[in-house]
Amino acid sequence: MSLFEAQANEFHQRHIGPSHAETIEMLRTIGAPSIDDLVDKTVPAGIRMQQGLDLPPAMSEHEYLQHVKEISLKNQVFRTYIGQGYYDTITPPVIGRNLFENPAWYTQYTPYQAEIAQGRLESLLNFQTMVSDLTGLPLANASLLDEGTAAAEAMSMFFNMLNKDINSITRPRFFVDEETFPQTKDVVLTRAQPIGIEVVFGDYRNTELDGSYFGALIQYPNDKGSVEDYRAFIQQAHSAGAYVAMATDLLALTLLTSPGELGADCALGSAQRFGVPLGFGGPHAAFFAAKDDFKRNIPGRIIGVSIDAQGNRALRMALQTREQHIKREKATSNICTAQALLANMAAMYAVFHGPDGLRNIAKRTALLAQTLANALEERGFELLNQYFFDTVVLKVPDVAALREKAEAAGVNFRYFTGSNLVGIALDETTAPSDLLDLLRLFTGDDGAAVSFQVEHEGSIDIIPTSLTRTSEFLTHPVFNTHHSETKMMRYMRSLESKDYSLVHGMIPLGSCTMKLNAAAEMMPLSWAHWSKIHPFAPARQAEGYGYLVRELSRYLCEITAFDACSLQPNSGAQGEYAGLLTIKRFHEANGEGHRNVMLIPISAHGTNPATAVMCGMQVVVVKALENGYIDVDDLKAKAAQHSANLAGIMITYPSTYGVYEETVTEITQIVHENGGQVYMDGANMNAQVGLTAPGLIGADVCHLNLHKTFAIPHGGGGPGMGPICVKAHLAPHLPGHVESFGNGSAMGVDEGDFKGRGAVSAAEYGSASILLISYGYIRMLGREGVRKATEYAILNANYMLARLKGQFEILYTNHSGQCAHEFIVDLRPFKKSAEVEAEDVAKRLIDYGFHAPTMSFPVPGTIMIEPTESEDKAELDRFCDALLGIRSEIALIEEGTADKKDNVLKHAPHTQAMVCSDEWNRPYSREVAAFPHPAVKANKFWPSVARVNNTYGDRNLVCVCLPTEMYAEQA
Amino acid sequence: MSLFEAQANEFHQRHIGPSHAETIEMLRTIGAPSIDDLVDKTVPAGIRMQQGLDLPPAMSEHEYLQHVKEISLKNQVFRTYIGQGYYDTITPPVIGRNLFENPAWYTQYTPYQAEIAQGRLESLLNFQTMVSDLTGLPLANASLLDEGTAAAEAMSMFFNMLNKDINSITRPRFFVDEETFPQTKDVVLTRAQPIGIEVVFGDYRNTELDGSYFGALIQYPNDKGSVEDYRAFIQQAHSAGAYVAMATDLLALTLLTSPGELGADCALGSAQRFGVPLGFGGPHAAFFAAKDDFKRNIPGRIIGVSIDAQGNRALRMALQTREQHIKREKATSNICTAQALLANMAAMYAVFHGPDGLRNIAKRTALLAQTLANALEERGFELLNQYFFDTVVLKVPDVAALREKAEAAGVNFRYFTGSNLVGIALDETTAPSDLLDLLRLFTGDDGAAVSFQVEHEGSIDIIPTSLTRTSEFLTHPVFNTHHSETKMMRYMRSLESKDYSLVHGMIPLGSCTMKLNAAAEMMPLSWAHWSKIHPFAPARQAEGYGYLVRELSRYLCEITAFDACSLQPNSGAQGEYAGLLTIKRFHEANGEGHRNVMLIPISAHGTNPATAVMCGMQVVVVKALENGYIDVDDLKAKAAQHSANLAGIMITYPSTYGVYEETVTEITQIVHENGGQVYMDGANMNAQVGLTAPGLIGADVCHLNLHKTFAIPHGGGGPGMGPICVKAHLAPHLPGHVESFGNGSAMGVDEGDFKGRGAVSAAEYGSASILLISYGYIRMLGREGVRKATEYAILNANYMLARLKGQFEILYTNHSGQCAHEFIVDLRPFKKSAEVEAEDVAKRLIDYGFHAPTMSFPVPGTIMIEPTESEDKAELDRFCDALLGIRSEIALIEEGTADKKDNVLKHAPHTQAMVCSDEWNRPYSREVAAFPHPAVKANKFWPSVARVNNTYGDRNLVCVCLPTEMYAEQA
Repeated sequence: MSLFEAQANEFHQRHIGPSHAETIEMLRTIGAPSIDDLVDKTVPAGIRMQQGLDLPPAMSEHEYLQHVKEISLKNQVFRTYIGQGYYDTITPPVIGRNLFENPAWYTQYTPYQAEIAQGRLESLLNFQTMVSDLTGLPLANASLLDEGTAAAEAMSMFFNMLNKDINSITRPRFFVDEETFPQTKDVVLTRAQPIGIEVVFGDYRNTELDGSYFGALIQYPNDKGSVEDYRAFIQQAHSAGAYVAMATDLLALTLLTSPGELGADCALGSAQRFGVPLGFGGPHAAFFAAKDDFKRNIPGRIIGVSIDAQGNRALRMALQTREQHIKREKATSNICTAQALLANMAAMYAVFHGPDGLRNIAKRTALLAQTLANALEERGFELLNQYFFDTVVLKVPDVAALREKAEAAGVNFRYFTGSNLVGIALDETTAPSDLLDLLRLFTGDDGAAVSFQVEHEGSIDIIPTSLTRTSEFLTHPVFNTHHSETKMMRYMRSLESKDYSLVHGMIPLGSCTMKLNAAAEMMPLSWAHWSKIHPFAPARQAEGYGYLVRELSRYLCEITAFDACSLQPNSGAQGEYAGLLTIKRFHEANGEGHRNVMLIPISAHGTNPATAVMCGMQVVVVKALENGYIDVDDLKAKAAQHSANLAGIMITYPSTYGVYEETVTEITQIVHENGGQVYMDGANMNAQVGLTAPGLIGADVCHLNLHKTFAIPHGGGGPGMGPICVKAHLAPHLPGHVESFGNGSAMGVDEGDFKGRGAVSAAEYGSASILLISYGYIRMLGREGVRKATEYAILNANYMLARLKGQFEILYTNHSGQCAHEFIVDLRPFKKSAEVEAEDVAKRLIDYGFHAPTMSFPVPGTIMIEPTESEDKAELDRFCDALLGIRSEIALIEEGTADKKDNVLKHAPHTQAMVCSDEWNRPYSREVAAFPHPAVKANKFWPSVARVNNTYGDRNLVCVCLPTEMYAEQA
Repeated sequence: MSLFEAQANEFHQRHIGPSHAETIEMLRTIGAPSIDDLVDKTVPAGIRMQQGLDLPPAMSEHEYLQHVKEISLKNQVFRTYIGQGYYDTITPPVIGRNLFENPAWYTQYTPYQAEIAQGRLESLLNFQTMVSDLTGLPLANASLLDEGTAAAEAMSMFFNMLNKDINSITRPRFFVDEETFPQTKDVVLTRAQPIGIEVVFGDYRNTELDGSYFGALIQYPNDKGSVEDYRAFIQQAHSAGAYVAMATDLLALTLLTSPGELGADCALGSAQRFGVPLGFGGPHAAFFAAKDDFKRNIPGRIIGVSIDAQGNRALRMALQTREQHIKREKATSNICTAQALLANMAAMYAVFHGPDGLRNIAKRTALLAQTLANALEERGFELLNQYFFDTVVLKVPDVAALREKAEAAGVNFRYFTGSNLVGIALDETTAPSDLLDLLRLFTGDDGAAVSFQVEHEGSIDIIPTSLTRTSEFLTHPVFNTHHSETKMMRYMRSLESKDYSLVHGMIPLGSCTMKLNAAAEMMPLSWAHWSKIHPFAPARQAEGYGYLVRELSRYLCEITAFDACSLQPNSGAQGEYAGLLTIKRFHEANGEGHRNVMLIPISAHGTNPATAVMCGMQVVVVKALENGYIDVDDLKAKAAQHSANLAGIMITYPSTYGVYEETVTEITQIVHENGGQVYMDGANMNAQVGLTAPGLIGADVCHLNLHKTFAIPHGGGGPGMGPICVKAHLAPHLPGHVESFGNGSAMGVDEGDFKGRGAVSAAEYGSASILLISYGYIRMLGREGVRKATEYAILNANYMLARLKGQFEILYTNHSGQCAHEFIVDLRPFKKSAEVEAEDVAKRLIDYGFHAPTMSFPVPGTIMIEPTESEDKAELDRFCDALLGIRSEIALIEEGTADKKDNVLKHAPHTQAMVCSDEWNRPYSREVAAFPHPAVKANKFWPSVARVNNTYGDRNLVCVCLPTEMYAEQA
């Protein structure tokens, strides 16, 4: 390779951990002469990709940043007054720099290891408190994917509460006020149909619910900006036994009577305008709050307060037994990822501004809207609403002419289809001077004629007294302390310092692929030409995004050996949903709508069965053989048995046990022969790219976790992205979108009836802005690099396996003794030999300076290790040394040298308060507790609490900040 | 204030710490009814500013970022081939994001408290190792301001080595090869004249030095890009008893025989092209290396290896007794600040690329230069040099026509004045495709005609065999380990975690003003339209910088009540130098060149006398009264005594004792009456802005530390900026610059003879890009906000004083018992009462989670506390609580409860290794050691080494990374 080629290809050396010399050593340990040989021994020959990927060649980071800058300039940054759930906002620079652009925040994993995640847990508790306070509802979760899916989740929650027996549905109807955002209606409709919910659209003012309704959705302020008093409607709904959800706006709620006070059972919406950039639709955090009655049914993650082993306050994810990991096909939601990073940004925005600051922002916005409305009215325009918050809707004689003029001036309004209504949604960024520009557009006057005083501060007449907020909110000290930048910066840094992330060491999370999230991949997200584009801006203003969508779709199709792609699903679980829906629609289109049996291997991730049920399917479990492979005989039998109604199968490849089953093509063939379609879960795609592909193993559709395989950071529990790729026959059944951007062709289908095909996300391309990360990943690695990444993922896993296999039992390797890109270490023998649980090992790993691997999935009592290609040999060794060190500690118990209850594992992790305490009555030394390996001393990462008590917290659920008095007591 | 006004003014609430409620409480503690009253009691009425500052109104952060984006677009980003010491470079994104844009790196203070600074000390040791390896010289410092001043420092160092008796100079001459960068010659000349050095320019090939020369400066590769073999010249110089310094280029040295191997005594240059953006001239780190003989004379800071109280390796600044703080008028340099942040970036660049990576970058650059040269030659152009590295210089028939064409194509070359030579300097960013563009410009051909193969990798013929590097470099593991981004990120994070910075807590450094460095002030520095402008680009391409320079100059003049401003000085000490030089030139212009006596109060910072001596002046010390005021009688007597030769006085205001002397106008009057000029040191300007001004107290010139008062971060020991402002009569004597940008008018003077007036910095506006920070500070605070900042600086200091004065002796308050913005706590009584030294208190503060205040300046045995306006009451209280806690610990010794040697202060700071050790034989508990206050437990910052032994390190000077064997042993 010449120097110049080497330069173009340098990124793969930055992305991949092991050096050339390390690679040779590692191969020697494994006993493979070369990487090619290792791959040959690992990936079955029958499914190997025969030629290289048709992707562009690699670009250096420097070239890529120039390239993506050029693409960004194809997007035009207009002044946006579109609204419709997405508003321009000001990310406080202190939050932008110290959180959004800080790998110590965005490379965190989901806070399963609570002892080393107290920072973001505190921030997410702040988020919940903020949502609970503003909505006036006691229970809030730690975010959902977007407003549309949050509305759908409310619907499902109500449906399941009131229809306990799924086989005898007594209340099938859900009322949706017609003045709800179109994209919300679209998603709700998509989600309702498969489970037999009948959505009834109407005008809430003329509607009386009866006993056939389980619930209703109303929006506050509504789609046209009107602030309506829903008290009577809610009362009527309750008297009919139905629940009411309100889609709402957090900023408006600082001035409006809260949904809780109005009687709503649930409130939801987007927290985007609390400092999270538009980003052409996301990622943003949706919020969801409910009455206490929904404690066991609320979807998503909830952060709760508990105590640790020392009796100190400690936070952790509460009520996990609600989740689909546990409940599987009994789950009522497949929601898995949250939008943690964005929820943290929104929460920090509230912490920084405090209640007065937020109220002032809302007041400014409302006063400007009022001033604008009055001025327009004075000039003869007819306004639609008497009461509103930030959105002025008016009748315009010649909408087309206005639009032309506005776009020439770089301004976007909302144009309500099929009417002469134009919406002007103001926001935090609107300045008094903008009003003059707006008036000029509407009146055609020059400045002089329209000039008027806009900086006055009168009373707000556009909110009726009966709906003016009187209750306090955000009274907790955390929202009333950190208002100088210095304090804010230190607060965020102090939380950051409690959280283990990829900046500290490896996070070998099996099936979660915690690889490098390169700075060059992340940097463009901060650029205005990507971040300040409204998702419903006209397509011609977003040609940069158009390019991105087309190119990335093409690359993903190439990588999966499929023909079409939808970038809409906002998470892996949503990708599963979109995939199964596509299969369902395919069967329906073939007149085989009765096909509703989904085969799911026993080892499948809990989202698989949960998703199948959400699609109205019946789950039939397929057994596994002792070696972890799918039991082909059982599959054959069940496929034959359900042949008439077989919808398909959901498989993961390589399997969740971490092996490439050689039988996979036989499996897909059996399903096809019985009329089913094959869905491949893309969780383990990092073991396929460039070596094999879903299309080669016989699948028809797969989702891809861009936040795993394609380098989007985990953000401490979201965002994620779960696009799906399909074979050509499924392309016509991919999700559509009511506000389609006109890029259907990028998905390999004609625009046609695209708008009517049902959306799964609020925005057409889900969290569009982070697609950039995956795009950058593929462009910088290039066609060779993406394959190399896979090869090194396999090398790294097999190296660790080789180092550990003498001391630990490894479950499920292939006939050559190789694993794929991950492997399972069985800890169950230690339960017998030393009363040591998997959890003890996980917590002891914290003392060694590590984040534990995946716990008890897919096999209880085990850990699953996936090192990824980005870790180098030294780090793999450090981790292996830690596990081997723990093995010796277990041996001490086994041989009786250490006590079975009072030992270094049971008391792990050890906090500095414990180790530095004057009292020490452990049978082992402080140094053994804190510095079990010499390397730990140089770079100790302390857990900020001792082992967290989950049971206590679930028994005493508290999911908002402690009241001030208790807080003071703690401090 | 209306909501809209409040919005525009919001930044001051972000910048200033105390809330309204806190302010009231604090005033109560002080016993002042209002801030106005406190200010009246503090600042003498006679010098108060009578009206508000004529500055623009405040802007919100959002408005400011829009504004500065607009200004940035007035700068045009050209493809730059100018070279001349400044090259385009690629900042690796991982370094940009995790170091350059990370407040945990850029808000660090100079590493005086070594125990909480081991991270950057290690990085700076890497820098020194890199410089030492590449230059082939054993001794390297931790950076200087720029290449020009580094050359001047080499000259001074040689001069002082060979002319021990300043009154009998035997070797007055310094040879400078004419092919040295013009700006280097300019600075050398400026610095030579005042101390009587005669600079002789000539062609080294025809020069033989005799006994009248103390040294010589040659450049390698030289100004025209030629690689010359200086062996014979150096040998001849040595035989004449003279020293030789080589200005050189680190990237070239990866391919060229090192200066050390060629026999040079010293090597210097700029490390800019190692990943530090151009930024219109800076900030960049200059490097400086020398033979061991210069150990006691090398200028600047040196990081050295020592041991801590536990015998472990520990780093700290070595040989501080060399520095002007100690040596005062005996010092041979006034250099104080380094360019730590930029040195760290350059060092990390080398860590990331490693020796092979650097060599490859150099090879690519050289191969492209060679290819370009050959192609040009083939096409009939005459080249100037046979041997070169990255710069092709050729003769062009019609330079004007070429220039027009090039600039139309967005390309800058170097045009050598008065010749038909054009220089093309290539760099890391040059791609093979660029060569085609270049050839097209020169030949006028279309692409086809000039197409040729540029990606070949032949041998490098442009470097002569006799000068091809054969020696190894960067063999230390640190340069051969962190080549993946994951490793690199973790390495930087692990260093960061050892260093205390403003993200952790206050750094109340008296006279250093560690205030908020707001994210909005910092963000524009990363934008290409500011960072990618060459300092010698034509003025019309840099109109954004032009605007910045003019506006900021105007604001600084308004704030100082002066008439003209030079933004050139690159540090405070250099500002002092520029200021005294201006006075000197003024006297000379008046025919009073004999005026050379500079009065300096005894309390002055060590840079004052050192600077005076560098300007060829004689220092006469003025006494202080017991209350710390200047002894006016002594001043009168000395001014009268030296009246005939009085050059002026250097005062600091408020004084370094932290009080506003009411006598200041009398003092300035006395000096003026005796024909002298008044220089005001701007170190304490944060106590003046908006309340009084240098112009109002009677000064003629002052410098401003933009990195103190005007929010430029300290960067862990640089960059700094020290512009000077002057009264109109001094304006014609401000520094000029050989490459003047044509903005002299911004400085209140005609362009005229500007180029010939002698530069003090290598670039006309010093570290121009960080001027943006100060500009943003002034624009966002606005005319009211900057004054408020001063008022709160005074409030905060007086609040702390009020809280501490009962328990500690406070030195020097005014007649009302008030301090200015800082105050001195006397610790000397504890030496007697408890054998406690100031250092013990400083180190114990680390255990409490704080960085110590300024130690033993201006009074030995004291600490000087300056909280700044950015700290809120809670943080001030936390610090006061810590000091009061330490006071109680001292009381235990005083009363005999604690031992005088074996106590918690003497053993401070306590590392986690100490506290968590199994052995504990202290007479106090572990918890007392580590968590002396309950608040510490929640957010402990651990020192990474125990108390550092300075003596050991100075006796055994090691200023490069330990050899690999020792390194391995340590690890």
